[in-house]
Amino acid sequence: MSSDVRWLTAEEERVWRRWLTLNARLSATLQRELQDDARLSAPDYEVLVHLTDSPAGRVRVTDLARLLQWERSRVSHHVTRMESRRLVQRVECAEDGRGAFVVITPRGRAAIEQAAPGHVATVRRLVFDVLSPEEIEALATITDKVLVQLDGPPEGLT
Amino acid sequence: MSSDVRWLTAEEERVWRRWLTLNARLSATLQRELQDDARLSAPDYEVLVHLTDSPAGRVRVTDLARLLQWERSRVSHHVTRMESRRLVQRVECAEDGRGAFVVITPRGRAAIEQAAPGHVATVRRLVFDVLSPEEIEALATITDKVLVQLDGPPEGLT
Repeated sequence: MSSDVRWLTAEEERVWRRWLTLNARLSATLQRELQDDARLSAPDYEVLVHLTDSPAGRVRVTDLARLLQWERSRVSHHVTRMESRRLVQRVECAEDGRGAFVVITPRGRAAIEQAAPGHVATVRRLVFDVLSPEEIEALATITDKVLVQLDGPPEGLT
Repeated sequence: MSSDVRWLTAEEERVWRRWLTLNARLSATLQRELQDDARLSAPDYEVLVHLTDSPAGRVRVTDLARLLQWERSRVSHHVTRMESRRLVQRVECAEDGRGAFVVITPRGRAAIEQAAPGHVATVRRLVFDVLSPEEIEALATITDKVLVQLDGPPEGLT
């Protein structure tokens, strides 16, 4: 291996592995609960959250891709699967040429209403009730800094 | 919906969504890089890390499951797929009845040696170089607190 790699220190390695473990376990716990409560996967739930956030209960595929930070093709495939379970419906919008809307169905609305209270209670119990206000603030700072880094430097500064 | 649910505050909701976004994007970035550099998926990489951590380059399936925090059946399926790509080999150990070892092959060792420098450099660039020592300490505290909560109260205290 290249000798000029700055390997992680033992403490960095420990933090990084704990973080990976935490995310794997937290997401497994939340997924299992969504499945048990409302037969929803975590991606289903995310899609439904964004649809219910919109007053009309509908969002264009392109906008969903941006909101979810998914590739457009992944949104499209996932919506097709949710459509076959009648959780959402795709409504073509030929006249403006800006692509189809994804609309939440009554069954989709019932599913998220069934899932949301337990999901939020678990997120609260496992994360927000455990952390002090200062730790929540630190988490916000840490998250924002890493996201800025992921986005790369603003244009004109490269 | 039940009226006694303590929904997240706007700030908690923001932090939670940013965290989910961060984890999705960080993991997508790291996966893409592992794939490009060495044709490894993130789970492949994790398995190989644990095998190279062991001085003999071999770990029992049961111990891998504990180290990876995966279900034993998931480890078993994943090892089968990695075996077909000759990254690892399963070595039965009939005499002691404690189950098979997973052993890293020379090809597996070459793959992780090819992937590791880029992977570590990216983790460093996106996470550890961006955070101050205090923020890394806060991240360690936050991670440990949530993991303790995920584990539930110690026996005898319920």
